[in-house]
Amino acid sequence: MSRKVIELFYDVVSPYAWLGFEVLCRYRNVWNMDLKLRPALLGGVLLASGNRSPVMVPNKGLYMMKDLNQLASYMNVPLQHPSDPIEVMFGKGSLSAMRFITAVAEKEKEKDNDRLLENVSREVWKRIWSTDQDICEPASLSEAGLKAGFSSSEVEELLRLANSQAVKDNLKQTTQEAVNYEAFGLPLVVCHVDGKPQAFFGSDRFELMAHCIGEKWLGPQPDKPTLNL
Amino acid sequence: MSRKVIELFYDVVSPYAWLGFEVLCRYRNVWNMDLKLRPALLGGVLLASGNRSPVMVPNKGLYMMKDLNQLASYMNVPLQHPSDPIEVMFGKGSLSAMRFITAVAEKEKEKDNDRLLENVSREVWKRIWSTDQDICEPASLSEAGLKAGFSSSEVEELLRLANSQAVKDNLKQTTQEAVNYEAFGLPLVVCHVDGKPQAFFGSDRFELMAHCIGEKWLGPQPDKPTLNL
Repeated sequence: MSRKVIELFYDVVSPYAWLGFEVLCRYRNVWNMDLKLRPALLGGVLLASGNRSPVMVPNKGLYMMKDLNQLASYMNVPLQHPSDPIEVMFGKGSLSAMRFITAVAEKEKEKDNDRLLENVSREVWKRIWSTDQDICEPASLSEAGLKAGFSSSEVEELLRLANSQAVKDNLKQTTQEAVNYEAFGLPLVVCHVDGKPQAFFGSDRFELMAHCIGEKWLGPQPDKPTLNL
Repeated sequence: MSRKVIELFYDVVSPYAWLGFEVLCRYRNVWNMDLKLRPALLGGVLLASGNRSPVMVPNKGLYMMKDLNQLASYMNVPLQHPSDPIEVMFGKGSLSAMRFITAVAEKEKEKDNDRLLENVSREVWKRIWSTDQDICEPASLSEAGLKAGFSSSEVEELLRLANSQAVKDNLKQTTQEAVNYEAFGLPLVVCHVDGKPQAFFGSDRFELMAHCIGEKWLGPQPDKPTLNL
């Protein structure tokens, strides 16, 4: 049986995307799949689809706080709400962070694994959605890059690369690819089954996804979680 | 162990609510719970919470069509999209149907089971979300009532009751109860655990719900489906 290709379009500004990211990373060795991490921009997806953030409806925002807490605990992801979520999500946003992560994707694309891309994404997520730290300043991204396993000089190079037109275009293009799959938010998981893409929005369709790709859903912690905090 | 009380707030205009309804009805004898069916009005919930239907975002509407098809197949619910979903959901709506179903809830409230309320709800859902039939006219509701197991004279009485102020107020009050649980849409499932209500929106939190009430999630078809079509 050939391995199924599963693409995960994500933005670190989304806490639901973090949950989906951790679960799919854990399933790398459980399902017969190639997981492709696709850093994209949530703001771009919302704009292109005419959607608005769920947080704009007060009851939905309140619900999401509780829902995220329950899911994070159940899924064993150390998610904590930032002290000022509105400022973090809508004021500061994730553009520079996603460009930095896209630079990592670009730099690592020839390698046969994307472990560093996974690590950097997780380190940035931990800052914004666990330890309430900045993800906009170069120093913040630099710290995440070092923790992820890059050397100082590599991090310097990544910061330069993050501001290049090539990386800016790359992020735009990946975002457009998500939109082409009819995304209206992130995360978006696209499973390629028999040459046909099947898109799943959010982090609550894993059981259905498993059914679609002919695998078993074993809950959110099938192995040891890969997270180290 | 005392039985957990689980309330399901629903409106037959919502196809996701139908999925949740069928799954929870199947779990009546699997989980140690008392399922309480709470007919409410989705339009009222959206209005009170300032939410808007997801169908208003084109990509979300497209996605929901596919998502519903996949979920319905996986959950073994014979859901079919009506030929004119916008007219059915936003033009005709479900006010008279939900008043009729509330009349059934009112009439049956002294009984020790709500099998007839379950049956009527399902028969109305089958009309709107399976066989593309009207649910607004008295003759349509009458047909659903007869199929659910009521006699002709009982159906007459239910149609009268559905137009009474008491039933109108009852539906408003149940809708308000859902809003008080911070609903921004339906279905809303409220689990009462240790005297504390925990609300779950939608039909995709059963695994988490099971975890919260100390039961096991065995997928959407744990027993034989109760549906007979």
